[in-house]
Amino acid sequence: MIETSDEQTPLTPVTVLGLGPMGRALASAFLNAGHQVTVWNRTSGKAGDLLDHGAVAAGSVQEAVRAGQVIIVCLIDYDAVQATLEPSQADWENRCLVNLTSGEPAQARQMSEWASSRGIDYLDGAILTPTPAIGTPSAAVLFSGAHDVYEAVQETMSAVGGAAVHLGDDPGQASAYEVALLDIFATSVNGIVHAFALASAEGIEPERFAAFATGIGGLLPEMITRFARQIQTGHYPGDRSTIASAASGITHIINTATTHGIDVGMLTAAKGIIDQAVADGYGTQGLARLSTMLHTRAVA
Amino acid sequence: MIETSDEQTPLTPVTVLGLGPMGRALASAFLNAGHQVTVWNRTSGKAGDLLDHGAVAAGSVQEAVRAGQVIIVCLIDYDAVQATLEPSQADWENRCLVNLTSGEPAQARQMSEWASSRGIDYLDGAILTPTPAIGTPSAAVLFSGAHDVYEAVQETMSAVGGAAVHLGDDPGQASAYEVALLDIFATSVNGIVHAFALASAEGIEPERFAAFATGIGGLLPEMITRFARQIQTGHYPGDRSTIASAASGITHIINTATTHGIDVGMLTAAKGIIDQAVADGYGTQGLARLSTMLHTRAVA
Ligand SMILES: NC(=O)c1ccc[n+]([C@@H]2O[C@H](COP(=O)([O-])OP(=O)(O)OC[C@H]3O[C@@H](n4cnc5c(N)ncnc54)[C@H](OP(=O)(O)O)[C@@H]3O)[C@@H](O)[C@H]2O)c1
Ligand SMILES: NC(=O)c1ccc[n+]([C@@H]2O[C@H](COP(=O)([O-])OP(=O)(O)OC[C@H]3O[C@@H](n4cnc5c(N)ncnc54)[C@H](OP(=O)(O)O)[C@@H]3O)[C@@H](O)[C@H]2O)c1
Repeated sequence: MIETSDEQTPLTPVTVLGLGPMGRALASAFLNAGHQVTVWNRTSGKAGDLLDHGAVAAGSVQEAVRAGQVIIVCLIDYDAVQATLEPSQADWENRCLVNLTSGEPAQARQMSEWASSRGIDYLDGAILTPTPAIGTPSAAVLFSGAHDVYEAVQETMSAVGGAAVHLGDDPGQASAYEVALLDIFATSVNGIVHAFALASAEGIEPERFAAFATGIGGLLPEMITRFARQIQTGHYPGDRSTIASAASGITHIINTATTHGIDVGMLTAAKGIIDQAVADGYGTQGLARLSTMLHTRAVA
Repeated sequence: MIETSDEQTPLTPVTVLGLGPMGRALASAFLNAGHQVTVWNRTSGKAGDLLDHGAVAAGSVQEAVRAGQVIIVCLIDYDAVQATLEPSQADWENRCLVNLTSGEPAQARQMSEWASSRGIDYLDGAILTPTPAIGTPSAAVLFSGAHDVYEAVQETMSAVGGAAVHLGDDPGQASAYEVALLDIFATSVNGIVHAFALASAEGIEPERFAAFATGIGGLLPEMITRFARQIQTGHYPGDRSTIASAASGITHIINTATTHGIDVGMLTAAKGIIDQAVADGYGTQGLARLSTMLHTRAVA
């Protein structure tokens, strides 16, 4: 376990393993906060102007781990993390591993066990905001895993900016939140690109369409909060809009897209759930009721 | 064509055909603005407290049309509008029909032709905001169809509140925008209910999950604007996040949902598009590139 630095001691040296868009943003935030930063990436030549700003590129994972006290890993997935850390002969004594790679809760728990078997202090994390937010007050990062490790890295991690939340000792919790949040984000992104294709097919220019579409973002927070309350109480009033109305709406989208030869895979899948809800007698209820239609089987 | 009222003449009498959630909200907004309001609904007994606030319930469509000068129709779909208007013996002289029912561009054009064949002044419209916004500055309504009809009803329709936009003479344009906007909204709603199911399966309470999820709404406007610019220029930089990274992320969601026996239909369809983009060599590009992957066939 590293010691928390006080005002007299220099800032903790940080290592960032992985220089994709997010790894670069993280390294940049630590540099801006005044940390000594060592970077490593599988493919060399990705450090870009980080080196101009004082980062040091390590030639190996072993060397990179040696140079830092808080070791951040941010790669495409947990398999990549394993492939990077497992074969290295790194010495982890007096170091913490903070894994900000996206993954599944089960993978985070496995990784935590792997770290524990090597005597590595491990914290799992999930970044909820895009790269431009990193190092600013709008960044949001969730952590889960041993509380003492969180406390040891908390001050260093504050360079990432914004709100950091420690969700508790279960290392899988950050990934659990992340996967569910990514569910909304990924689905919305795919809906957005589909809508641009549909608008274009209807002769509406992307920037003109965007001027109207941006307003949809503002509708979501109230809806998410209302749905949460309804799901929590199991009461789904159809006073504002109903599942039957949604069935009609999604049919319009599917028909219009089909006319233009645009893929309707996602929409057809969504319509299947909506139609099932209508068939089950929920047509006059509100949309939050759809959350109860998604279990395909009983789970042991 | 009705005459536009000036400050001396009383407000135009309005009829609302359809008392679903949106029809009720519209009737209420016209009442609040001081209009004489007549309502009709296929199934009686839906007028609720509109009658207490001065609305008059008509016994037939014919009677309802006779009582108003601007006749709003807001039903579940265009088939319902046809089924309501076609058999009625209503006299449309000196009246305008404003159809705020959601539908497809082709249906709006057909409805406009039908109206024209009956000598009915017709305007098509699309409501972009939920019922609580109606009658407030945050309401948004699009209109398309003959400009003189728009001018004739514009003052009356201002009771709906917020921004009204006339998109031009093609009666299908309001529906075209609406269908593409609904594409984003419907997809997001289905993603949100799915995320609640997934979060619950991971032991995360709906209201606790919502506290984090509401932030996603705030990410969409900037993303939509950026995607529009990229689609307009055909340039899809992967500097912030890539399609390959999205492929990994959506796999995590699918795997986690599958573990819990939660439907993965929408996600699998979205993954199909993402995987195709990677297979086509776009893995290092940004997500807006996915908008070019959605044409399933060349259209004549
Ligand atoms: N970008 C965002 O907006 C954002 C937001 C929130 C969370 N995240 C998460 O942050 C993580 C990193 O994302 P990113 O955007 O930086 O890019 P990414 O495309 O997800 O990951 C790229 C990084 O992974 C490395 N990598 C891939 N396969 C590897 C392997 N087998 N062994 C070792 N390294 C491997 C790449 O190295 P090479 O250069 O050698 O290929 C590169 O460093 C992801 O889990 C992502 O979900 C990103
Ligand atoms: N609610 C919203 O937030 C919202 C937002 C934007 C746009 N819109 C659009 O506004 C329109 C109305 O929506 P809504 O929420 O009020 O409810 P809705 O469920 O879409 O429509 C209900 C209305 O349609 C009538 N109807 C259904 N089938 C009919 C038929 N065959 N003949 C005659 N009437 C029929 C119903 O009459 P009965 O009572 O007799 O069944 C009721 O008046 C829809 O096109 C919707 O997409 C709604």
